[in-house]
Amino acid sequence: MGNILAGIKGPEDLQSLNDAELGELAAEIRQRIIAVVSHNGGHLAPNLGVVELTLALHSVLRSPRDKIIWDVGHQCYVHKILTGRQEQFPTLRTQGGLSGFPKPEESPHDVVGTGHTSTSISSALGLALARDLAGEDYTVCAVIGDGALTGGLALEGLNHAGHVGTDLLVVLNDNEMSISPNVGALSSYLSRLRTEPAYGKLKADVEYILRKLPAIGGQVVKSVERLKDSLKYLLVAGVLFEELGFTYLGPIDGHNLPLLKQVLTSAKRVKGPVLLHVITIKGKGYPPAEAEPDRFHGVGPFDPVTGKAKKKGGAPTYTEVFAKTLVQLAEGDHRIVGITAAMPKGTGLDLLAQRFPNRCYDVGIAEQHAVTLAAGLARGGFRPVVAVYSTFLQRAYDQIVHDVCLANLPVVFAMDRGGVVGEDGPTHHGVFDLAYLRHIPGMTLMAPKDEAELQQMLVTAMGHPGPVALRYPRGSGEGAALWEKPHPIPIGRAEVVRPGTDIALLALGPMVARAQAAAEILAQEGIDAAVINARFVKPLDEETILSYAQKTRKLVTIEDHVCQGGFGSAVLELLAQKGVTGCRLAAMGYGDRFIEHGSREYLLEKNRLTAAGIVETARNLLDLPEGQEKVCRGPERGEGHG
Amino acid sequence: MGNILAGIKGPEDLQSLNDAELGELAAEIRQRIIAVVSHNGGHLAPNLGVVELTLALHSVLRSPRDKIIWDVGHQCYVHKILTGRQEQFPTLRTQGGLSGFPKPEESPHDVVGTGHTSTSISSALGLALARDLAGEDYTVCAVIGDGALTGGLALEGLNHAGHVGTDLLVVLNDNEMSISPNVGALSSYLSRLRTEPAYGKLKADVEYILRKLPAIGGQVVKSVERLKDSLKYLLVAGVLFEELGFTYLGPIDGHNLPLLKQVLTSAKRVKGPVLLHVITIKGKGYPPAEAEPDRFHGVGPFDPVTGKAKKKGGAPTYTEVFAKTLVQLAEGDHRIVGITAAMPKGTGLDLLAQRFPNRCYDVGIAEQHAVTLAAGLARGGFRPVVAVYSTFLQRAYDQIVHDVCLANLPVVFAMDRGGVVGEDGPTHHGVFDLAYLRHIPGMTLMAPKDEAELQQMLVTAMGHPGPVALRYPRGSGEGAALWEKPHPIPIGRAEVVRPGTDIALLALGPMVARAQAAAEILAQEGIDAAVINARFVKPLDEETILSYAQKTRKLVTIEDHVCQGGFGSAVLELLAQKGVTGCRLAAMGYGDRFIEHGSREYLLEKNRLTAAGIVETARNLLDLPEGQEKVCRGPERGEGHG
Repeated sequence: MGNILAGIKGPEDLQSLNDAELGELAAEIRQRIIAVVSHNGGHLAPNLGVVELTLALHSVLRSPRDKIIWDVGHQCYVHKILTGRQEQFPTLRTQGGLSGFPKPEESPHDVVGTGHTSTSISSALGLALARDLAGEDYTVCAVIGDGALTGGLALEGLNHAGHVGTDLLVVLNDNEMSISPNVGALSSYLSRLRTEPAYGKLKADVEYILRKLPAIGGQVVKSVERLKDSLKYLLVAGVLFEELGFTYLGPIDGHNLPLLKQVLTSAKRVKGPVLLHVITIKGKGYPPAEAEPDRFHGVGPFDPVTGKAKKKGGAPTYTEVFAKTLVQLAEGDHRIVGITAAMPKGTGLDLLAQRFPNRCYDVGIAEQHAVTLAAGLARGGFRPVVAVYSTFLQRAYDQIVHDVCLANLPVVFAMDRGGVVGEDGPTHHGVFDLAYLRHIPGMTLMAPKDEAELQQMLVTAMGHPGPVALRYPRGSGEGAALWEKPHPIPIGRAEVVRPGTDIALLALGPMVARAQAAAEILAQEGIDAAVINARFVKPLDEETILSYAQKTRKLVTIEDHVCQGGFGSAVLELLAQKGVTGCRLAAMGYGDRFIEHGSREYLLEKNRLTAAGIVETARNLLDLPEGQEKVCRGPERGEGHG
Repeated sequence: MGNILAGIKGPEDLQSLNDAELGELAAEIRQRIIAVVSHNGGHLAPNLGVVELTLALHSVLRSPRDKIIWDVGHQCYVHKILTGRQEQFPTLRTQGGLSGFPKPEESPHDVVGTGHTSTSISSALGLALARDLAGEDYTVCAVIGDGALTGGLALEGLNHAGHVGTDLLVVLNDNEMSISPNVGALSSYLSRLRTEPAYGKLKADVEYILRKLPAIGGQVVKSVERLKDSLKYLLVAGVLFEELGFTYLGPIDGHNLPLLKQVLTSAKRVKGPVLLHVITIKGKGYPPAEAEPDRFHGVGPFDPVTGKAKKKGGAPTYTEVFAKTLVQLAEGDHRIVGITAAMPKGTGLDLLAQRFPNRCYDVGIAEQHAVTLAAGLARGGFRPVVAVYSTFLQRAYDQIVHDVCLANLPVVFAMDRGGVVGEDGPTHHGVFDLAYLRHIPGMTLMAPKDEAELQQMLVTAMGHPGPVALRYPRGSGEGAALWEKPHPIPIGRAEVVRPGTDIALLALGPMVARAQAAAEILAQEGIDAAVINARFVKPLDEETILSYAQKTRKLVTIEDHVCQGGFGSAVLELLAQKGVTGCRLAAMGYGDRFIEHGSREYLLEKNRLTAAGIVETARNLLDLPEGQEKVCRGPERGEGHG
């Protein structure tokens, strides 16, 4: 830890530092972030980009009385270090340690918990209105990236904030990229602001000309009068934000600390909503990250000297297998197009974009638009694949219902990061998707047991005439042998992985391998457990499930998902609908709580989604007399809020 | 039917009409719409406002080769009349008749089915990209209102369309209001465009001045050169749209048919995305609707001569009771604030806005922002009530998870129009809400059996320290005696409306009265049915449900909601979790299909959610031997797509 940093116990300690010391502190903070993130993994480039901005904010504002709200929140490390958490910082993103996102439970300085993008303006406006109603007078400041600004929620927030007109400071942290380079007309607009020096001089020029003009007289003077009125309104940089009711300040250099402090001090004094446009460099101060800000947005452990990722080896990831298979299928079917919402690398769609640049659309951070756009493409005869993380697809729930399923359009949702995702924590776990998709009429929902089955399911999905959601987990596959040319599997057909007569383990996705391991342990105890790879959450393989229900009278459903409304629920509904009674069912999955951060394996184990956990559940189901079991697993006791 | 209208079998018949005849046709169409809507109810003012615009679109474009996409779609009546459906038009919104919204199953001219707002630009862009990929060259045109333009999805669509740059025509139908007068900075911007004649003259003025200027010379000339470059870019009306990459045309008079045809013809020829700004008058041509466009947005039957609503009488609606009770509570608790997304009248929040103008926020058509704003207000110590229709809250699913429930904030969702809504059909039925909310940790979900219980539940919700969703149906209450001062009810406690030993009817919301009626019929047959008013879908009253499960071994769950993932599912999960086996459960609700339009009572009956339907289900459950029942109701056979 650096000399100055060691003395910073809270933001108030910044007050005694002069600009030179603050500059030195910035360097120390960068060292610290690089050291911890290279070890733990995390969001590197966004944090290196906001060191000066965060120092300036905490120098000028008085947190937590003044409220600083970080959009998305993956750029909050500097903020955490400055607000009393520098000693805990090495625990970042580890189980029981600091969250990688703002978390009100951690500190009063983390005003709003975040993780998804584009929420900050709405949150901040809500707080500002609460302040006004309560007759208080603190500053509310949202810090939002230019990428997040393209999300519909942020635009709704801007529109309403401009209308309300109350004091609100929006700092636009413009680093010219979200996770990937930005798309969208708004982004082009911002680059024009950045690159046109004429803007700055324009106003001065106009005033100079207008001073000279009265000499001309007559008709010109009348025109000039009208012109003056209009120019006053038009001739400002950031006219777009001004049109929306904001006072626009900037653009200013986001790495010039004295300037930042000075402009922030002015911005605080402006009445009404202010947009302060700050230009930063993602990865600033760490050459490997400046060179490849995209790769260093979110990283696993790496060598801090070279910037090279520490090799993990192992099986290819589900993402990689999806990406390669999609390209292979697209080679043979010109109708296949890909859509990503600013995550081409994360979803693997960059592979399709390289091979078929005209058939892959990055729409920016705009999941709603991604889905409705896909509906339009499907209506036009194409076969769009919307590749998106399960948790982010939540934002397009209505579009899935209204634009895709109601019209029964063949849109494929490739839901990466289904299930717990690990270190990114509660805002990012994809544990609700089966529940929010299963009840939508016309939806087909599947989850592969391994990466080879993912290949088959992708082929199946592309051949299906209606909407399909395909769910697979984060990380490496099971190491299955991949298909050279995958074949489709029948819709609604499960796979009996292991027959059995005493109990049936109905497992979904990556839970199948765990169920197989459990069955082997149970076999050693003389229990003959069947293992069913469910494959489909909708439509269920009614025949297979009912036959095992009749045969064993004891079912365990196992899913990397909340118990409420998920796969286990679907099986219960089937049994009730068919009038099957006297059959005992234990539903394994997550209980009714948000799940904290920690490694994926840790979280699965904690929630008993392991071979041992399945064995125990099966034993309980077999031993207990009817009417006494309490078998729903995964209560996540003591975590999250009540 | 008028003389000219009678001859219009399809849009091609417009080609032979001159402007005078088109004008006459416009008048005939208005008469026809007033005649049918005054009888059937429907969207009046929006359709009267787009008569000339629709005539112009169908004169200039060649539908269905050219694609016309109606945002929201409630302004599609003229379009339906012109595209071969004038004879069916009197069946509008009646069971088996024409839908009140565009519906591809009805006609190839209805390119995209709609109902929710702000989808048209994304849909249109998807079709335009499909056109480009297929090498075709038709025109794709989205018609969107100024209200819908404030929805985040529309803004995402604009942003991406401006970036992509392909040919796309967006007609902005600017009538200065959505359903209620518009809010938002964008709306103020549009009114400046409408009202500043200076805009039109500005460019001419500038050019005039610039021509005179070179006479001055020297420093001025240099300034002028820079100025010229910038002005070229800044001095256009609609600069905001131009900034987003659109060519802006307008504003033009939306009731001047020859002008509309001329400008549309030009707009079609412009390369890249075009925004054509058309000013219309909502309710145009029918004085009562012009005077009260808000009331005539969507109406029940009315007297076409006076414009007066045909009195329905009967019990107050749930909406009215909610609104009055909320005002009453707000009188006594300054923390209570209301939020509506452009539906103050529909949700009854106008009452709160009248009483406490500073404590009621209309955020425009922006449900996502409404919810995250509420989270901000709740963090600031206030008790926001987000009053919204169940179907529209779908759009804020992610914000409910991420911004409200994860933080366990006390936000109350007053979900009006829960269950089937009737004539507005599949895009508007609120039949998914329990399923998309039930699995979210921390959510409390309740539904009152009548309007008096709604009062109690609202008090209960306002006193609860976490998120609550309160669901009630469209239309009149049960005629229950209202509370002068309602008291809270215990969270998670059901009400045993009628004890019984043979079978338990677990009913939710308005299904309770039907279950009571069923129990009386069953009693006459010697069957002693218990009736439980479930009240809470989450948390369930485990004690009451388990005790009746043990006692009767036969449960019927009854909900105005899809069976998948709903209340019945929650009961099944409870029974499985507690190891209760040998209990038969019939889940009544909607099957796995979208539900068509028709009166609410018709739809309930069709899906057997009636006393008779419950009786039949109960009889089946009592008669059939175990293992043979097939009891899930509401398959909606033969409706919707497969």
